[in-house]
Amino acid sequence: MNKNDTAKKALALHKKLGGKIRISPATPVRNRVDLSLVYTPGVGYVSSYVAKHKKDAREYTMKGRMVAVISDGSAVLGLGNIGALGALPVMEGKAALFKTFADVDAFPIVLDTQDADEIVDTVLRIAPGFGGINLEDIAAPKCFEIERKLIERLDIPVMHDDQHGTAIVVLAGLINAMKVVKKDMNRSTVTVSGVGAAGVATMKLLKKYAPKVRILAVDSTGIVWSGRDDLNSTKKELIKHKIIFSDTGGDLEKALIDSDVFLGLSRPGVINAAMIKKMAKDPIIFAMANPTPEIMPDEAKKGGAKVIATGRSDFPNQVNNSLSFPGVFRGALDNGVRKITDDMKINAAKAIASLIQKPTTQKILPDMFDKRVAKNVARAIR
Amino acid sequence: MNKNDTAKKALALHKKLGGKIRISPATPVRNRVDLSLVYTPGVGYVSSYVAKHKKDAREYTMKGRMVAVISDGSAVLGLGNIGALGALPVMEGKAALFKTFADVDAFPIVLDTQDADEIVDTVLRIAPGFGGINLEDIAAPKCFEIERKLIERLDIPVMHDDQHGTAIVVLAGLINAMKVVKKDMNRSTVTVSGVGAAGVATMKLLKKYAPKVRILAVDSTGIVWSGRDDLNSTKKELIKHKIIFSDTGGDLEKALIDSDVFLGLSRPGVINAAMIKKMAKDPIIFAMANPTPEIMPDEAKKGGAKVIATGRSDFPNQVNNSLSFPGVFRGALDNGVRKITDDMKINAAKAIASLIQKPTTQKILPDMFDKRVAKNVARAIR
Repeated sequence: MNKNDTAKKALALHKKLGGKIRISPATPVRNRVDLSLVYTPGVGYVSSYVAKHKKDAREYTMKGRMVAVISDGSAVLGLGNIGALGALPVMEGKAALFKTFADVDAFPIVLDTQDADEIVDTVLRIAPGFGGINLEDIAAPKCFEIERKLIERLDIPVMHDDQHGTAIVVLAGLINAMKVVKKDMNRSTVTVSGVGAAGVATMKLLKKYAPKVRILAVDSTGIVWSGRDDLNSTKKELIKHKIIFSDTGGDLEKALIDSDVFLGLSRPGVINAAMIKKMAKDPIIFAMANPTPEIMPDEAKKGGAKVIATGRSDFPNQVNNSLSFPGVFRGALDNGVRKITDDMKINAAKAIASLIQKPTTQKILPDMFDKRVAKNVARAIR
Repeated sequence: MNKNDTAKKALALHKKLGGKIRISPATPVRNRVDLSLVYTPGVGYVSSYVAKHKKDAREYTMKGRMVAVISDGSAVLGLGNIGALGALPVMEGKAALFKTFADVDAFPIVLDTQDADEIVDTVLRIAPGFGGINLEDIAAPKCFEIERKLIERLDIPVMHDDQHGTAIVVLAGLINAMKVVKKDMNRSTVTVSGVGAAGVATMKLLKKYAPKVRILAVDSTGIVWSGRDDLNSTKKELIKHKIIFSDTGGDLEKALIDSDVFLGLSRPGVINAAMIKKMAKDPIIFAMANPTPEIMPDEAKKGGAKVIATGRSDFPNQVNNSLSFPGVFRGALDNGVRKITDDMKINAAKAIASLIQKPTTQKILPDMFDKRVAKNVARAIR
């Protein structure tokens, strides 16, 4: 479908459906006996029991199966800050994917505030009924603080998918791309364009996976390094914790010289074929800006790119969070996981990568509709 | 079923189900084409559109169909303040009834705060995705303030069901009970035991329906009247606005002398057969404390009660909110109603009452499973 077709069809479908999710009772309420068990008086005994045995709420209520998909609409897809209502169709779609890919019941909550503290307070207050919190499309850098505070204060798993869902799938793809070009991540240089939610989490996870990998981060001003006086606290921390390193400033073109990998989590047009030509042998290009990649695959090929991945379904090697988030929460719910650790994320990435037995330039990641994906990922989250 | 049976079966059912509601996609996501419409890239066009045309969110998102069932667990059934997790099974049951009786998609949110201002703030912040707010099992008097503030500040219908859902059904029952005993509400005296959420809303609606009805309110201290110095602001307002009137204090026994109607929204044991004998001819007894009524029906009969209603399904004339709340929100969603007015509530009560063509002592209210109920109520909410 072309753009206009897709737009027209998507709008028509949404109007026809009037919202993309439905609620249904888990058991039919056909008569007074059903009613006396599902509702009063029977439910009173369940309420008393759960109030006294709070840990058992996961067994007796929706808490054991329900994930909240929460957004303030401050960074929706490539659309930017379009607010709560604009974010709602995306969150509904996410809930539909949770169910489709991993049988996770997920419910969208869009917030009428974009203040970090208010978001934290609100999520804390609505959390009792949920078994997990999926934060979505919340702008950096506040997304880091919000996630950190919620993880500290809640005893259910909290994950900002734009960060960690992306990081898991990028790592999975990179593991296999490295196999294709026969390189060792620990001896490679990775240049990351974009130091937002996805970029930061990806760099951190990559460094955790391969402690000796050299990572260069480039933002809209250029290479992130200690010589700059315009760095926000997130970027300063990346330097301080030696996630990234550069002893010189410069632009993306300079950063890419002799790089093995380009990870684009930024915007279209930042890289071209000439820049790829200056990279190390067999360059790996992940151009994940959506819907328009940092560079189109045929253009990247002209520059000599060996493995090319994008966020799109109409090219090979689609890097898409749908490979990770459904299984991550499925596993967390199944295994009673309260905190999703870096080790779990790395294991999830390995689990995704392992589904491709012989990675090729055209196939480094499994298909989203491959039913083994969520199952494999879920097993890694324990 | 006896108590133990019900308790055992309810606990077993809840454990088996693991929560009583499920989320499902409104349309299947089977392949990349489906995905491109439900999620990226198609959803992006819908998000952009909705962000620009906020009023259309009711058509294009779940906002047009989704009701939040919200509780802080401060006054759950007859169990009292058992907190958020204790409230959750009830709210899930409520969501199941919404779907069963009126095809309304409803989602339970239980709150980890019992502070009125925090509850208001939280509901305001999560409201964008919802088309209606059903407040539930929130203690009086804070429930009045919470509901008032939310109605003022939101452009979607907000209803505290314990108040207005109850008031609607009680009024419906009373309309028909009055027919049975051939009395005029405007010439009658109604004594209400219990000045909590349900009692206050019922008295207000009754007075609106029949401006000349005489209402006496009795709380745990006795008749509510201007001579008392222990009245909270809610009770003072009832006097000030002439909803209730008494020029003397006293106990329930005194209040009931020559009363035509007893409305119990309080607790078991406050009334006995001897007290009913002192009421006016053909007394109407609504003993709605749950699960144990203020007086059991056979005992009320001994006192000469003509029409007896309770909250229970095992006696005739069950007064149950399930007759009202599903249809109220169905109607509000269908008809784009932003505020549920007293006139609408009265019309809803009349709509329920009208389903019983010839009321008798044994039948003043329709059955909850009568499918005409929600439809009739929905038509009244416009």
